[in-house]
Amino acid sequence: MRAVDLIRKKRDSGELSREEIQFLVSGYTRNEIPDYQMAAWLMAVWIRGMKRAEIAALTEVMLHSGDVVDHSEIPGKKVDKHSTGGIGDKTSLILAPIVAAGGLTVPMISGRGLGHTGGTLDKLEAIPGFNVNLSLKEFRRVLQECGMCLIGQTAEIAPADKKIYALRDVTSTVENIGLICASIMSKKLAEGIDALVLDVKTGSGAFMKKEEDSIRLAEVMVETGKRMGKKVVALITDMDQPLGRMAGHSNEVIESVEVLKGRGPADLRELSIELSAWMFYLGEKTKSVEEGRHLAETIITSGRGLEKFRHGIRLQGGDERVIDEPKRLPGARFHVDVSSAAAGYIQSTLCEQFGLALAVLGGGREKKEDKIDHGVGLEFHKRVGDRVNKGDPLVTIHYNSDAKLAEAKTLIAGSYQMGEEAPREKWPLIRRILGA
Amino acid sequence: MRAVDLIRKKRDSGELSREEIQFLVSGYTRNEIPDYQMAAWLMAVWIRGMKRAEIAALTEVMLHSGDVVDHSEIPGKKVDKHSTGGIGDKTSLILAPIVAAGGLTVPMISGRGLGHTGGTLDKLEAIPGFNVNLSLKEFRRVLQECGMCLIGQTAEIAPADKKIYALRDVTSTVENIGLICASIMSKKLAEGIDALVLDVKTGSGAFMKKEEDSIRLAEVMVETGKRMGKKVVALITDMDQPLGRMAGHSNEVIESVEVLKGRGPADLRELSIELSAWMFYLGEKTKSVEEGRHLAETIITSGRGLEKFRHGIRLQGGDERVIDEPKRLPGARFHVDVSSAAAGYIQSTLCEQFGLALAVLGGGREKKEDKIDHGVGLEFHKRVGDRVNKGDPLVTIHYNSDAKLAEAKTLIAGSYQMGEEAPREKWPLIRRILGA
Repeated sequence: MRAVDLIRKKRDSGELSREEIQFLVSGYTRNEIPDYQMAAWLMAVWIRGMKRAEIAALTEVMLHSGDVVDHSEIPGKKVDKHSTGGIGDKTSLILAPIVAAGGLTVPMISGRGLGHTGGTLDKLEAIPGFNVNLSLKEFRRVLQECGMCLIGQTAEIAPADKKIYALRDVTSTVENIGLICASIMSKKLAEGIDALVLDVKTGSGAFMKKEEDSIRLAEVMVETGKRMGKKVVALITDMDQPLGRMAGHSNEVIESVEVLKGRGPADLRELSIELSAWMFYLGEKTKSVEEGRHLAETIITSGRGLEKFRHGIRLQGGDERVIDEPKRLPGARFHVDVSSAAAGYIQSTLCEQFGLALAVLGGGREKKEDKIDHGVGLEFHKRVGDRVNKGDPLVTIHYNSDAKLAEAKTLIAGSYQMGEEAPREKWPLIRRILGA
Repeated sequence: MRAVDLIRKKRDSGELSREEIQFLVSGYTRNEIPDYQMAAWLMAVWIRGMKRAEIAALTEVMLHSGDVVDHSEIPGKKVDKHSTGGIGDKTSLILAPIVAAGGLTVPMISGRGLGHTGGTLDKLEAIPGFNVNLSLKEFRRVLQECGMCLIGQTAEIAPADKKIYALRDVTSTVENIGLICASIMSKKLAEGIDALVLDVKTGSGAFMKKEEDSIRLAEVMVETGKRMGKKVVALITDMDQPLGRMAGHSNEVIESVEVLKGRGPADLRELSIELSAWMFYLGEKTKSVEEGRHLAETIITSGRGLEKFRHGIRLQGGDERVIDEPKRLPGARFHVDVSSAAAGYIQSTLCEQFGLALAVLGGGREKKEDKIDHGVGLEFHKRVGDRVNKGDPLVTIHYNSDAKLAEAKTLIAGSYQMGEEAPREKWPLIRRILGA
């Protein structure tokens, strides 16, 4: 078997066998197949696509390129959630404590932000001392002690994905359903979970802007997970505007705590409860999703979710006092409002631009090596459908340097599409559920 | 400008500007853009294609990546021919002496064989002592002295092409009209020529198997050459069966000498004269192609072509005695016939298989580093349309090792498609002329 022939086969729209995919991925992981051949193959895959069987094979081969964690010594079901990413999407910080407080184990291996979307690891690192770089051994110990642990991808987990993802990032081969599915699912299945809830974002702030693409990605991921014997459902959820009122790292920790305290914005609370409910149901903690919702609400009301979060922060070396003293989080020295230039109804937002604005302010990265300013953030005052008057503040920018403030302002101001009448269609937050 | 954005643009079927192509190719040649990004871009180009303006820009940028030879101190026109390659295609060895003997200068930078096709440099190296690795200075000296010189691509000539071609070879991005055009034309235009005759092969033994693809490639090359102020015509010629009766390196030198001696097979003689005639016409040596044909025939008949070849061999360090004593060329110790398994008319050949058979016997290379056995060869006894009886010899194999003889025999025997009746259609050797 030769890499050059497999590249040609995919270039000519052929379907690769499991053995052929294994040959490519294993060879690449072992540095026997060079970057340039993998890059050519990835571009051919991006353009020609993969069949379901190829995606499943790729996922499986990437999964088995490293360790598959075994949590069998921890009693009960292990469940996780994965989001495809968006603006203000901080549900992991809320649902992990809720679900762990409900008696399931949440072994969550998360990612960092890249481009316009934030990453769970970066948000957690806004908490002074919080350590996401645990070994698999420490990961297991924290899980045993409090039922939740949030860490980054270790060298042992799906090394093929790590290597391939880095290459995709610099060869414009990221946004492909098969490659995204294999990347996400190989990591998630390596966590040693029984069930997985997928939050597939759709809209202007998501990687998948069109709902049909989000549905296709969700279908492929659900099918791939089920092929591997896992319970998987996918929720297609709205990302045509930010989730919640806060974006930015410290900001999102604060808002997550608000929800765990029984406050916070309605949309964020609703989605966090809904995802938790599905996790309870798939993890066989409740007999129905409805019952799961009820359990999640009870956990919030009773304060058990908040206590679990506190415990989790402490076990991962973080300063748990941030929960009651948000000033201990990195902050921003300055703030300024972006106000509406005209009166009217907000029709929609170019949501991605909020993420880009945040990155411009230092709260995101263009390259993997970039350092993040956890203190900068955006506070959203209006939602789609709201009526605004000229001069009404739309967004408050929290910033530490005005070097690129003008650029951020332009991005934010340009993101709002106004109209004279209230928008006719109102998208629901949760648009569709697949795999249930 | 960032390579990753240009990759994305081509991936999404966009058209790159001259500046963008310059950025990519110059960056790659200077090792600032890594192989993997160029590989991803090449695959996107292969699948999405390039517009004429992009091809012209790529050619120009590759041409100017190195030296463009200036032969202005040599009086008269400089003309060259390029063939896209096939089986038994040895016309360069015949027409270079004819055209030089006719008073034009032929500065020919040629390539090596790869895959199923032979290369002019390899054929010349069958002649003991013949040195194709001349510096540009020596190249000019030989040209001044005898009007012809055949060398390999030097480091100074189109280094971008050299680097990109090596990458295409290992990433399955070779057979693309735009990339082929840029590769050929950048090298040929760097030779310092006034006019170029292109021999674009079509059929089962060519890189372009379909006539419409050959025509498209020819059109693109002619247009690109003309954009750069050169006279260019392209002949689309038949490669559905081998050219002449001989394939293999020593074999082809022998057959070339035969044609220069006024003998040799009719098809090879016809094509060599036709290509020479166009070179005379474009080089303004004759007022018409017809007159050019006549001049070429006169040069053969008078023996001036043969004498020019002798002189050229001597100047490049080769043993000119091979012209009269072919035994001085590397030979084959054994020979065996492949005979027809059935009676009938030869309908067509899978011509590429002859080239593969030759490579299997050691007379070709799979990888650039492979050494070639110049002595092995094939002798074809029958042509398409011929009636054969069962047991009639079709091909004589000249070989030195029987290690892979069986494989070669199978390839050769399997190449002939027989039928009960004479094939209705007979393709002309020269199918079409473009750009005239």
